[in-house]
Amino acid sequence: MTAGRVRITGARITPVAFDDPPLLNAVGVHEPYALRAVIQLDTDAGVVGLGETYADEGHLRRLHTAASVLAGQDIFAFNEMHRAVADALGGDAGADGHGLTGMITTSSTVDRVFSPFEVACLDAAGKILGRPVSDLLGGAVRDSVPFSAYLFYKWAGHPGRGADSWGEALDPEGIVRQARRMVDDYGFTAVKLKGGVFPPEQEIEAVRALRAEFPGHPLRIDPNAAWTVPTSVHVAQELDGIIEYLEDPTPGLDGMAEVARHAAMPLATNMCVVAFDEIAPSVARGSVSVVLSDHHYWGGLTRSRLLAGICDTFGLGLSMHSNSHLGISLAAMVQLAAATPNLTYACDTHWPWKTQDVIAAGPLTFHEGSVAVPAGPGLGIELDEDALGRLHELYLSCGLRSRDDTRYRQSIEPGWVKPTW
Amino acid sequence: MTAGRVRITGARITPVAFDDPPLLNAVGVHEPYALRAVIQLDTDAGVVGLGETYADEGHLRRLHTAASVLAGQDIFAFNEMHRAVADALGGDAGADGHGLTGMITTSSTVDRVFSPFEVACLDAAGKILGRPVSDLLGGAVRDSVPFSAYLFYKWAGHPGRGADSWGEALDPEGIVRQARRMVDDYGFTAVKLKGGVFPPEQEIEAVRALRAEFPGHPLRIDPNAAWTVPTSVHVAQELDGIIEYLEDPTPGLDGMAEVARHAAMPLATNMCVVAFDEIAPSVARGSVSVVLSDHHYWGGLTRSRLLAGICDTFGLGLSMHSNSHLGISLAAMVQLAAATPNLTYACDTHWPWKTQDVIAAGPLTFHEGSVAVPAGPGLGIELDEDALGRLHELYLSCGLRSRDDTRYRQSIEPGWVKPTW
Repeated sequence: MTAGRVRITGARITPVAFDDPPLLNAVGVHEPYALRAVIQLDTDAGVVGLGETYADEGHLRRLHTAASVLAGQDIFAFNEMHRAVADALGGDAGADGHGLTGMITTSSTVDRVFSPFEVACLDAAGKILGRPVSDLLGGAVRDSVPFSAYLFYKWAGHPGRGADSWGEALDPEGIVRQARRMVDDYGFTAVKLKGGVFPPEQEIEAVRALRAEFPGHPLRIDPNAAWTVPTSVHVAQELDGIIEYLEDPTPGLDGMAEVARHAAMPLATNMCVVAFDEIAPSVARGSVSVVLSDHHYWGGLTRSRLLAGICDTFGLGLSMHSNSHLGISLAAMVQLAAATPNLTYACDTHWPWKTQDVIAAGPLTFHEGSVAVPAGPGLGIELDEDALGRLHELYLSCGLRSRDDTRYRQSIEPGWVKPTW
Repeated sequence: MTAGRVRITGARITPVAFDDPPLLNAVGVHEPYALRAVIQLDTDAGVVGLGETYADEGHLRRLHTAASVLAGQDIFAFNEMHRAVADALGGDAGADGHGLTGMITTSSTVDRVFSPFEVACLDAAGKILGRPVSDLLGGAVRDSVPFSAYLFYKWAGHPGRGADSWGEALDPEGIVRQARRMVDDYGFTAVKLKGGVFPPEQEIEAVRALRAEFPGHPLRIDPNAAWTVPTSVHVAQELDGIIEYLEDPTPGLDGMAEVARHAAMPLATNMCVVAFDEIAPSVARGSVSVVLSDHHYWGGLTRSRLLAGICDTFGLGLSMHSNSHLGISLAAMVQLAAATPNLTYACDTHWPWKTQDVIAAGPLTFHEGSVAVPAGPGLGIELDEDALGRLHELYLSCGLRSRDDTRYRQSIEPGWVKPTW
């Protein structure tokens, strides 16, 4: 970059769909397609920045609203851009449609909408400066970022579509088999089980089976708040000394605080603390000890660095949450994690579960459970325009427009209701 | 900047002295000279970054220790640089020597030492990118930054040196006279009185006299924790509806919390919350409602932005503290304030009290109490090498090596002791 400002000239927002296996969770099951939106941010320097976010219909509409007010802004003007997005949304608050995140407030909606544009600005800035995005976040403190294996109870395949390569996992043996392949293929050194699907005793049994199979791997379980406080306390007692943290056993700041008073291990969350205005109430109650950051809803990478600084200041641990995502998001997660000294837990990723992508293959590969921080400028990845086109076609043809795991499960098992144990 | 890393090649650290009037405070009186250190950070891009900090002997020694480990680092590698400085200092903790700041811990000593180098890196980066430093802090949200008039009780001049142009201010009339000149000359729209010098009733009277003279100006008083809790509560009652905040009436987080329970106005601090590890205990106790940031001890500009984000997240107000300083620091304060949306109070500055500087005249002028954010790259100021040489000569000849307001006052008034009311 020679000098001066670089203006945003426009943003191309492309919804895409990609195949997703039938992964079970507390509210239902993943639909056959996961939706994402890809942002190509154009600048008057000729450089294009990339971002990736959700693609539910309401979110897409809000992304277009935001894009219309970001044109003309300088790519470093994050304060002004955030304010402009907030003003443009005018108090519009989204809903996630799948019930796996906490309450979405007006302010957290702004952060969700702002996030992919901020990432795209950082990608563009890094490309222009000839620096990786991590340099713009305080600089990398590690060469590679460790991730955890993300285990799911699952059906063999989506009904009527045959089995996928992972096959069925509906009991402890199936979970251990899935974990073995994940660890063998990717080298993961930490393991997370998505719970809240079967009665807690069966999931406790699965975690114990994982401990027996992987005696040196830190383990986690996340039932997405499907348990009552007494059940959560019981599970915490049963898994004392076995898991490194217990993620969202029960809903709400007060419930989590009650469990925390009786649990030996740290409680973690990506449900009861998902926005800046939930941090102070959580600190006051002692609800959680570990926050799972996620730049997609914490307002981008610089605001996720703020979250990290807050966690550091208040003695909270920091991990990283994942939704089903593609390579632009993985690159952003890696750049952020590289530049966050107090991110000491292996990050979550859904990476192994997807078979398609919008980026050119190459820079993001797992070695011993970690992804090397891309050495190239910006996010360090390149868009594959053909792949983007194909996954956009899939979006257009697949018919899905908003994620709803409950609706899909009920379409297969009429009368199914979200359980609470 | 074309591409890639810019390495630090060295740092020139120059202690300087400048004339300082006999400004009274709770621990004594300003000595005839104030000390600062100027950092010229050299890079392999040929660009020099500027920083300014304290110059007490222990601090100078620690600056040299830090400089020795920063050579070779990239100017964006703040995470690594902060860690390297912490490692190099090895737990060495400083003392301020003047008793006007809170406890200086090991971690806050790292932030104090790191700060001027971080500012210098940002100055260099801004110069290379052709952007003001505010662009590297999230972008300016205001074109100019308002400051407050900083009133002091003072002697007519240093003993044996004749009166200075401000003359004596030892009663309400003297304070109002001083304020009138400050407001007329600089346009300040907020007024702060340094208190803790005379019995509280006299200082209450001074504030009331200011209110009568300046009915529209927000007012503050700061006795540097010279009062007991009951005295603080009494003053708070007397000044209810008159001051916008009450700054450090009494020492410690518990004392401040007790005062806060009885004071109608916000309590502010630059004494009981001066480091990141003091924030959580303050929040837990409700000790203060406003934090006065100061990049010189909060670890530089990016960490001051973190402080701002924490204040925003926890519902704390944000103002800005000042020690006696020169133009490099004022430029850094202006760049930071410009890029901090929730800095809604006028900032403190000692600017009118000094008559010399190390920067070329021009960019930093007060208009209606505010300083326009410099439009040039980096901090937007240029070092005056001749002036730097002159003030370094003054440092060498003046004999002062560490600030000690108490010792100086006792040299003039033997037996004087710091009062507590």
